[in-house]
Order: sequence, then structure tokens, then C-alpha cells
Amino acid sequence: MGKKVATVLTNLFEDVEFTSPKETLEKAGHEVVTIGFEAGEIVEGKKEKTQVTIDKSIGDVDPSDFDALLIPGGYSPDKLRKDERFLDFVRDFSKNNKPIFSICHAPQLLISAEVVKGKEVTSVKQVAIDLKNAGAHFRDEALVKDKSGLISSRTPTDLPVFNEAIIDALK
Amino acid sequence: MGKKVATVLTNLFEDVEFTSPKETLEKAGHEVVTIGFEAGEIVEGKKEKTQVTIDKSIGDVDPSDFDALLIPGGYSPDKLRKDERFLDFVRDFSKNNKPIFSICHAPQLLISAEVVKGKEVTSVKQVAIDLKNAGAHFRDEALVKDKSGLISSRTPTDLPVFNEAIIDALK
Repeated sequence: MGKKVATVLTNLFEDVEFTSPKETLEKAGHEVVTIGFEAGEIVEGKKEKTQVTIDKSIGDVDPSDFDALLIPGGYSPDKLRKDERFLDFVRDFSKNNKPIFSICHAPQLLISAEVVKGKEVTSVKQVAIDLKNAGAHFRDEALVKDKSGLISSRTPTDLPVFNEAIIDALK
Repeated sequence: MGKKVATVLTNLFEDVEFTSPKETLEKAGHEVVTIGFEAGEIVEGKKEKTQVTIDKSIGDVDPSDFDALLIPGGYSPDKLRKDERFLDFVRDFSKNNKPIFSICHAPQLLISAEVVKGKEVTSVKQVAIDLKNAGAHFRDEALVKDKSGLISSRTPTDLPVFNEAIIDALK
């Protein structure tokens, strides 16, 4: 049966880190709901200027309605982590050991939510030091699975293994 | 006598965090040299698309030629901190207690250079946790001066006190 996946997104997201997992998830019969600052807002990707309409405002969602959380990278996580509501949303998935799919700069949001300590995580190169300083066990590998349900990859190059792993996690 | 100030810069810098200190420094008789990945490259600001030509490649500069370092924010520091040469450049200023002027996201570069531990620093809101995790003493104030010569501010709103402080530091 299809699962419901929340994805948190705003401007300057890394296009393919949203579009590729979304396509993969939908092909496998899952539903992807975009959550941002305002419902109906059109946000734009960093490189390819992909336009995405936000389905739900962070103010109107309940994490218990979702089975998993996808966090695309780019500079979107930097903007989202300023807002405590996104941090609370992330914390709920973490607390309940629901799958969290993190790629590239996504761990910036996890660091601000204070949910990485003691976990196995990877990220884009320049965020590694912030993860280590936050007490995470950083691993420079294409795919890292933590026993909590946190699945992470480094960059768009890792998308094939990332996509495979997130589909597996929803089985 | 005029001093020589290095500023490290690449695309998506926060426009006014470069243009305003640069104008202030030049009016006071100092020289501002832009240092990036390639000499002659034109880099563009995040908001106002200000175009700046890079004077010197990071591969061709010697930190001992400069009296101080200015690091504008935006997403430029995130890109610069991937390259070990910028980290070495920053470390040299830190080691020699030369003034470092940091605003907004600039501390990301300082964190990667591992020069913030034990220092008084401020930054844009979302970088605060990364500074704390790196062992810095974060202070949510418009202007923070560390005894090492590190001067920091949070956002463009703080530019009036930031500019005043950097001029004072070069007297």
C-alpha cells in the first residue's frame, strides 16, 4: 500500500534532489506532499529553476499524517532551519523512528533540530565538520543507513543508491 | 597609512555585505582586494546580482601581503569552504591575530578552518548552533569583538556598527 511522504522545501533547493526521489516514490505508488512556508507558494530550484508549488504550509500540517520525511539539499535547508516549526516537524519523525531521507545540505536542518547526535550520517563535503561537531558519526559514503531510520547520501551523484534505499525503507 | 584588506568571495555572496564594507574601507584610504577561485572571474551577488571581478586567484596569493581579512556572507562562504586553500588562507590570519571581519554566514568558513574554538562570535541565526557545536561562544549581538582580532556581525542590519568597527580595527 502506498505511503505518504512529506518533503520540506523552499527556494534554492537542489532541483534533482527533489525531482528524482519524488518521481521514484510516485512510480512506486507513494504520495509526496510538499511542505513549505505557505501553501500555494511557488518555489524555485537553484540550478535548473524547477518550479514547485507548495502543497501545505508548515503551520497546517501534523507529522503524524506522514510515514516518512524527505529533505532535499541545496540552500533550502539553510532557510528552513531558521523556523522553529520545521525543527519541531523534523523532531517528531526522529522521535518516532520514522524514516528520514537526507541528501547533500539536508543535515543542516537535522543539526538545528538536534537529532543527529550519535547517529551515522553522510552529507555534502562542507557540512561534514558541522555534523561531526554536532556529535554525529560522519561517513564519507554514497549511502549511509542509521538504525534509527535515517538514510543519507552526499550529492546528486548518489541518487541511484539513495532512491533504491528510500523505496526499500517504505516496504 | 592605508591598509590592504583581502576579501574572499564567490557567487551568491550577500551583495551589501561586500559592497558596503568595501566602500567604507576605500573611503578611509584602504585597499580592498577580491580573492576567489580564478582571477578575472565575474561573480554575482545573491539578491541584487551585483557583479564583481575577482582580482586574484586563491592559488596566487600570500596571506602575509594583507593586513586584514573580510568575509562577506550569503552562500559564498559555503562554496569557499569546500576548498582547502581558502581554509589555509583564513588560518594564517587567525594564527597571526590579524583582524578578521565576519558577517552573516561567514563563520561557516571559520568553522571549517577550525579557528573559532573558545572565541566570542556572532552570526546569522541559523549558523549559531554550528558555532556553538564548534566550541565558539556565540553571542546574539549586533557587534562582537573577540580579543584575537575577530570582529563579527549578524546580518546587513548590523552594517553601520560593523563598518565602524572594522575602520577602528585598522587604525
